[in-house]
Amino acid sequence: MENLPKCEANYTPLTPLTFLKRAYNFYANRTSVIYEGTNFTWSQTYERCCRLASSLRSLNIAKNNVVSILAPNIPAMYEMHFAVPMAGAVLNTINTRLDAKTIASILKHAESKVFFVDYQYVPLAHEALRSLVDNESQQSNNNLQAATTSGGYYSSFPLVIVIDDIDSPTGIRLGELEYEELVQKGNPGYVPEFPQDEWDPIALNYTSGTTSEPKGVVYSHRGAYLSTLSLILGWEMGTEPVYLWTLPMFHCNGWTFTWGVAARGGTNVCLRNPTANDIYRNMSLHKVTHMCCAPIIFNIILEAKANECQTINSPVEILTGGAPPPASLLQQIETLGFHVTHAYGLTEATGPALVCEWQGKWNKLPKEEQAKLKARQGVSVLTLADVDVKNMETMESVPHDGKTMGEIVLRGSSIMKGYFKDQEATSKAFKNGWFLTGDVGVIYPDGYLEIKDRSKDVIISGGENISSVELESILYKHPKVLEAAVVAMPHARWGESPCAFLALKKNSEGKNDNNNEAEILAYCRKNMPHFMVPKKVVFMAELPKTATGKIQKFELRIKAKAIVASEKIPFNNRKFLNSKVKDKNGGHNRSEQQQILALSRL
Amino acid sequence: MENLPKCEANYTPLTPLTFLKRAYNFYANRTSVIYEGTNFTWSQTYERCCRLASSLRSLNIAKNNVVSILAPNIPAMYEMHFAVPMAGAVLNTINTRLDAKTIASILKHAESKVFFVDYQYVPLAHEALRSLVDNESQQSNNNLQAATTSGGYYSSFPLVIVIDDIDSPTGIRLGELEYEELVQKGNPGYVPEFPQDEWDPIALNYTSGTTSEPKGVVYSHRGAYLSTLSLILGWEMGTEPVYLWTLPMFHCNGWTFTWGVAARGGTNVCLRNPTANDIYRNMSLHKVTHMCCAPIIFNIILEAKANECQTINSPVEILTGGAPPPASLLQQIETLGFHVTHAYGLTEATGPALVCEWQGKWNKLPKEEQAKLKARQGVSVLTLADVDVKNMETMESVPHDGKTMGEIVLRGSSIMKGYFKDQEATSKAFKNGWFLTGDVGVIYPDGYLEIKDRSKDVIISGGENISSVELESILYKHPKVLEAAVVAMPHARWGESPCAFLALKKNSEGKNDNNNEAEILAYCRKNMPHFMVPKKVVFMAELPKTATGKIQKFELRIKAKAIVASEKIPFNNRKFLNSKVKDKNGGHNRSEQQQILALSRL
Repeated sequence: MENLPKCEANYTPLTPLTFLKRAYNFYANRTSVIYEGTNFTWSQTYERCCRLASSLRSLNIAKNNVVSILAPNIPAMYEMHFAVPMAGAVLNTINTRLDAKTIASILKHAESKVFFVDYQYVPLAHEALRSLVDNESQQSNNNLQAATTSGGYYSSFPLVIVIDDIDSPTGIRLGELEYEELVQKGNPGYVPEFPQDEWDPIALNYTSGTTSEPKGVVYSHRGAYLSTLSLILGWEMGTEPVYLWTLPMFHCNGWTFTWGVAARGGTNVCLRNPTANDIYRNMSLHKVTHMCCAPIIFNIILEAKANECQTINSPVEILTGGAPPPASLLQQIETLGFHVTHAYGLTEATGPALVCEWQGKWNKLPKEEQAKLKARQGVSVLTLADVDVKNMETMESVPHDGKTMGEIVLRGSSIMKGYFKDQEATSKAFKNGWFLTGDVGVIYPDGYLEIKDRSKDVIISGGENISSVELESILYKHPKVLEAAVVAMPHARWGESPCAFLALKKNSEGKNDNNNEAEILAYCRKNMPHFMVPKKVVFMAELPKTATGKIQKFELRIKAKAIVASEKIPFNNRKFLNSKVKDKNGGHNRSEQQQILALSRL
Repeated sequence: MENLPKCEANYTPLTPLTFLKRAYNFYANRTSVIYEGTNFTWSQTYERCCRLASSLRSLNIAKNNVVSILAPNIPAMYEMHFAVPMAGAVLNTINTRLDAKTIASILKHAESKVFFVDYQYVPLAHEALRSLVDNESQQSNNNLQAATTSGGYYSSFPLVIVIDDIDSPTGIRLGELEYEELVQKGNPGYVPEFPQDEWDPIALNYTSGTTSEPKGVVYSHRGAYLSTLSLILGWEMGTEPVYLWTLPMFHCNGWTFTWGVAARGGTNVCLRNPTANDIYRNMSLHKVTHMCCAPIIFNIILEAKANECQTINSPVEILTGGAPPPASLLQQIETLGFHVTHAYGLTEATGPALVCEWQGKWNKLPKEEQAKLKARQGVSVLTLADVDVKNMETMESVPHDGKTMGEIVLRGSSIMKGYFKDQEATSKAFKNGWFLTGDVGVIYPDGYLEIKDRSKDVIISGGENISSVELESILYKHPKVLEAAVVAMPHARWGESPCAFLALKKNSEGKNDNNNEAEILAYCRKNMPHFMVPKKVVFMAELPKTATGKIQKFELRIKAKAIVASEKIPFNNRKFLNSKVKDKNGGHNRSEQQQILALSRL
């Protein structure tokens, strides 16, 4: 029985490409993509992807070559999710918020053969390419002019193709080739390259580098396929969704919904910029049913001006992640007619790995209670084989008590193949048959997980683990707080102590920082155990963020260390708490300062 | 990038066993199984499956051994869908409607090591074992007594284990072992055997043999897993379903919902017999949300007596297959508060392969029109890689015109591994990279498929293809018709001609058959092309059916041939139509009869 052979009829490699083929078969005349005045059907999208894939092949793109793209959520970005693998190549979407140097280092590391650039990002791409040329020119005589217009590419320099706006062309170019021309020149009868092996790579996504250098995460066709099914299932996204592209497609391929909307025969509503006006306008015009976003988009929606708002007629499903949505935000957004599902994921897990699956019995609870439950990260998506929270020293599972912290570990076919050209990071990520997320969490008695922190963000103060996320969530409840981040500040006595960085709401600004600090500290002492109370509160107009909108805690950590050094924080903690002004005048001797600096280097 | 290695963390074999593990992790205290007064939680179901699996291991069940079960939809039947593969073995569910001889031949062909028998089926199993012993005794001296009580097994004789009713034990036994005792004796800490290779077999399901000898269809873990996801997706079954087991679990493992309900953290409401009373009672008591069934169950529900009916408070989703639901039946059942989705599948495709996916715009159409659209078989489920309708001579795809017939062919990882110990049948089933369904269909311009017939059931009359399904669907619309089946009757001039077998509704019975026939023929001539009008109408109290409730057309074909022979049907077709009485008196010479008989052998 075990020896019955595999054949083409009963063992087909799993690949998201089948979703487009299927959409072409069964949803041919349904609208696939909308972008301002431009509309395509699934039949047209399929044909356009065939054409583009054939053009890529005629540009000598070969199996497993990397094709990069720097673009917002426009139709070309969507099409390339199919066209690039249909040419046998690997799609590398680049975060548009990165700086030129980082983009250059990605192009170089990925060995991109072709670099598609949206017209709006031509200056940024130009700078990145300049930086790449400068770098390369030490080894060769290439220059940017030659590189972009040669119509070919050599060694590590990509061929550049501009994507002009399909709806209102601008004529902006960088080099000779343009996206739409490539599509038109392509062969509509091209037979797509389906992978022979489902373990073949389909995408290369660089991490945002919250905690370290960007790493190139490789997805297989199998992983992308299974994750796509998982997320449709986890979100319960039915057929014919009208999906608004607020989440950048360059984030884990739009958390796989680039492929997922095709699987469901839905409509992609593309959005160049997620402004309040454009979100509302598209939502109303196209009767949007689904969107993914970070909670930051909630703020954009909630802060819309009266003339930008439009009534939401039927509920819009939101899948959110990146940070747990604060309770107050949740309540406000749901009052407007949105229904929020909370997910947790990371690039290495092909987007969301956990979804806070709602339970019917929770509907009866008070709203406050519901928000608390919804802020948990929840249960594993269906195609993850297993998830656990482990004490990383003993590798033993933590008890299901909602308290004991450990590292969240994952296992399953939706986990990345590994980091591209980084054997060391890959080996570190996989341990004892698990993928280590680097996130610290707990398991509740009902089996649901909650993240307490990035393992690097846990503050260990006098042997106590302080979850910066927990502390932040309390700070967020203060009516004046707009943004909050807490990091470890070196502390001679306790090892580490919490330092809070806050951005206050606009109407709360302008007040005296000292008054504000006193108010915040009083609030903290009232609302959390004393060992958790921040030893320092710093106010900023805005907290520093990564290109993906995540707060850059490593920058805050540097600031916190600098503060410790400059403020000469005392050895004796009580002194610091009770007499901050006095502390400023020192009392530290040189060896105490050295101790602090030594600690800060850890 | 292609060389990044697979490891335990990122490449886990796909298996439905992960669904139970996950249910144990996240739905531990939710009700998993209800059967009359017995209730289990997912935590208990998981533990019971571990215990049973460990007991199977201690009975020397080894990897890929076959474990058979003859039982209705009881908790044990559900548990074995996990426990048997958790012991590394292969589950063989046997249709309870088969006769003893067929069961014996299945046990023998499958080389079953253990045979679980529900107490109610002890007499049938006893007879089957007797038949097996009689068969075996020619080679050895074993007898039934020794075989069932030896506590071990030898050569081709299975160890028998009775499943007493868990809710009201009867004490009925066959041999020494009883299911519940095995569960209790088992080790709750048993570590389930997960497949090392997802291509490993998980189930062996014998076809019902509508058209030929039963064949042993082998499913892989991979196929079962992907099909399960497909069907949850295709039916859009959300979390926490309350699933009523009207569809026998022995049909393609309950169309994979045995595994699917675990994946969704739902509740299985077990049902020993799908009577109107028990269906309504359980539906109301447990707030059932989902059920699968053949359209025959619609009749049971619709024909319920007043005292058996209960109001359906919230809509119950029905997934139906086996035969397209007639429009009138659809309308009646939906009026009661059911919502019907129509699917098409076959054992070889792990249950439903096509689902008639509803489109929003159809909601505006008249009910009659909607029923017609819903009666189509629809679009492929997501994990099928491809589906097509092909001219079987040229292997070319038919045009999407809703008219041109061809054979429906499938390809994808949810297709069976092959037929157990039947290389010839396996080779025949797979051709040019496709699985041949043996069903004849068309593709509509919107891409949806409709089945016109089993390829063996197409009537080829004077070179015209007559779809027996189409003819039957017209007959079903006649107010007196309860059941209709049309088969080919040999015909000397036309090759074949249609012969209709009808069962009339009870209130239409008792009338003169000749009058009825005249009425039916007049109706046919009014409602179909003349070449399609049956040349003969035969009335029966009930049409003969297979164990799975499908009409046995091969029996009807034999009858039709006998009629031809006895009635000496004339060479000249017109004669037959116009002067039936005269025809009875012959006019055939020997050679004409021989011609007819020769044709009937084709």
